[in-house]
Amino acid sequence: MENIITSKDNPTVKLYQKLSSSKKERLQYGLFVLEGLRIVEDALKEESGITQLILTEKAYERYGEELLQADLRNTRTIVISNELGNRISSTDSPQGVFAMCRIPVQRKVSDITVSGGKYLVLFGLQDPGNVGMMIRTADALGISGVIMSGSCDLYSPKVIRSTMGSVFRMKIAVENDAEMLFEALKQAGAVTSAAVIDKDAVPVTDCSFEGTQAVFIGNEGNGLPAEIAQRCSRRVIIPMHGNINSLNAAMAAGILMWELSK
Amino acid sequence: MENIITSKDNPTVKLYQKLSSSKKERLQYGLFVLEGLRIVEDALKEESGITQLILTEKAYERYGEELLQADLRNTRTIVISNELGNRISSTDSPQGVFAMCRIPVQRKVSDITVSGGKYLVLFGLQDPGNVGMMIRTADALGISGVIMSGSCDLYSPKVIRSTMGSVFRMKIAVENDAEMLFEALKQAGAVTSAAVIDKDAVPVTDCSFEGTQAVFIGNEGNGLPAEIAQRCSRRVIIPMHGNINSLNAAMAAGILMWELSK
Repeated sequence: MENIITSKDNPTVKLYQKLSSSKKERLQYGLFVLEGLRIVEDALKEESGITQLILTEKAYERYGEELLQADLRNTRTIVISNELGNRISSTDSPQGVFAMCRIPVQRKVSDITVSGGKYLVLFGLQDPGNVGMMIRTADALGISGVIMSGSCDLYSPKVIRSTMGSVFRMKIAVENDAEMLFEALKQAGAVTSAAVIDKDAVPVTDCSFEGTQAVFIGNEGNGLPAEIAQRCSRRVIIPMHGNINSLNAAMAAGILMWELSK
Repeated sequence: MENIITSKDNPTVKLYQKLSSSKKERLQYGLFVLEGLRIVEDALKEESGITQLILTEKAYERYGEELLQADLRNTRTIVISNELGNRISSTDSPQGVFAMCRIPVQRKVSDITVSGGKYLVLFGLQDPGNVGMMIRTADALGISGVIMSGSCDLYSPKVIRSTMGSVFRMKIAVENDAEMLFEALKQAGAVTSAAVIDKDAVPVTDCSFEGTQAVFIGNEGNGLPAEIAQRCSRRVIIPMHGNINSLNAAMAAGILMWELSK
């Protein structure tokens, strides 16, 4: 086994913690962090630019052989004490498997849109767990791509964790300027649908989703801004029988993606 | 304002904490806890047997007038210090509104089933957040009732919080004996569908959900036990295009409930 790092002042350990907690640091270094065996395995499988693998002593014994079979030519590996692992972990029962990963070049809407594609637009989403779950569901249902606009940082550890590895498989673009977003979707020939809870919107069950489609989902608490909903080709509603506040944003997005992908 | 309780040894405060952390204590006292303004308001609105309202000083000033307008004839109210509120809260930014609530008489499957009803059976679900989200979605989509079998405690604080008040509106039955469960669903004339991820199951898109229907969802990690899936009238699958592990149990349940309720 390699030298075991025990000091919390170790530069790699300190960098990991900085990248964990700060978007600014992530942008500055162009790196984000991963935690957990499965997501690190997924990243290695998808050749996602892991620059640094960090294993606790225990994880090295348990998963080392398996993990070190991957192509690690561009990856440094260090082993840290189990205590240090507990310190840098953001979960209650850490597996002791951590990594730093290069943030890929940010894709524009035009980079990921194709004719006939089905897209989910996350407009002003702030809950990392929700955003991750939506990306994960988009992957499962075969959605062509996810576009993030004014939403939380895709590379925050909570978003990454909640995607369960789908972040490495999905086509994801970021466009924070609403003007540019609508222009790019127009260029792509997309019909835009705003998911709203207004009674006068078109029930999803009456909508055709043929051709290129982009469905806008709004903020968890406030939904889509009225001016954004009005700019879309149509406003659609998931008919609800019970309490209208009961469908959370991720679940609404899931049902809409299901209708898109059928 | 009433006397402000500052001691962590106050019997009500101690009872609240016991009920928060232990199913055994909840069963013994027949009580469960609520935290948060909205869910406490929901419980008051639905006359859900709140026996004790606990407000921090700050919450008393802020929400007291509003909350104390409810029918509180059978409810004691105490005011505690803000510090004590932080201590008993299970959230990072506590609103300071807590309550204890009587656990209702447990309903049997036959108590909640009607001809033509649509039911969700949670079989072996263990993640409280998932269970709460499913109950919340069932409420939104107008599902007739939820049946819990071998799943986590409905009255754990995390489940209750994740239901966002839907726990007071949904018809929920508990039947932990699989034999009794199938017998009761047979008596109700229900077609039973097992949600699985086996390629040879019937795609949901090819299923009719007319008449009385019960859809079984299995454990987050392991799915439904094979013998339970085989006992159902049919095995159904949500066709997935991407990574088959990407649809989590709550999202799968949401899509199935959507199809049930359409």
